[in-house]
Amino acid sequence: MLVSNIDTPYYAVIFSTVLSENIDGYEKTSERMITLAKQQEGFLGIESARNSIGITVSYWSSLEAISKWKNNLEHTEARVLGREKWYAKYQLRICKVERAYSFEK
Amino acid sequence: MLVSNIDTPYYAVIFSTVLSENIDGYEKTSERMITLAKQQEGFLGIESARNSIGITVSYWSSLEAISKWKNNLEHTEARVLGREKWYAKYQLRICKVERAYSFEK
Repeated sequence: MLVSNIDTPYYAVIFSTVLSENIDGYEKTSERMITLAKQQEGFLGIESARNSIGITVSYWSSLEAISKWKNNLEHTEARVLGREKWYAKYQLRICKVERAYSFEK
Repeated sequence: MLVSNIDTPYYAVIFSTVLSENIDGYEKTSERMITLAKQQEGFLGIESARNSIGITVSYWSSLEAISKWKNNLEHTEARVLGREKWYAKYQLRICKVERAYSFEK
């Protein structure tokens, strides 16, 4: 699902990942984190795709909302597991969305 | 492949897409656009993943570099074909990358 119709400016967290060989529990925790993110104040939407790499982009109303989500306890525990087990590597980027365009047929 | 080690600030173009049923020529043009983007001044890297949706994030040194790439003739022709044929819908977001973190095992 694409996320549409958000007035700029807002914020995007681009999370690009390469999974390790040990992905026990990854799917379940990943789904739980999406459910939990959706409950956070300032959450605007999420887009995700994976083949050889994974890219998940979550959208937020402010840097404060991103910071609060980062400090969420269950999310923090999941990140520890992610680094210990599931991710071979990742890049996380915090961005200000300055302009947005959409197209629909 | 993940893109790493770029000093902030820089720019990201997040291109999230849903393909239509007519994808004749899509793969070839998509690969050509990646080759062409890599030749542009200010291009820093590209990450791409697709399953039910596609997310391609390209990274650039400046808004000027993004604008020049937008105005590239071959790219403009490809965008016309994209809207006519390949994309059911898309979202394109231009972002300033303010902070970046990386992890590697």
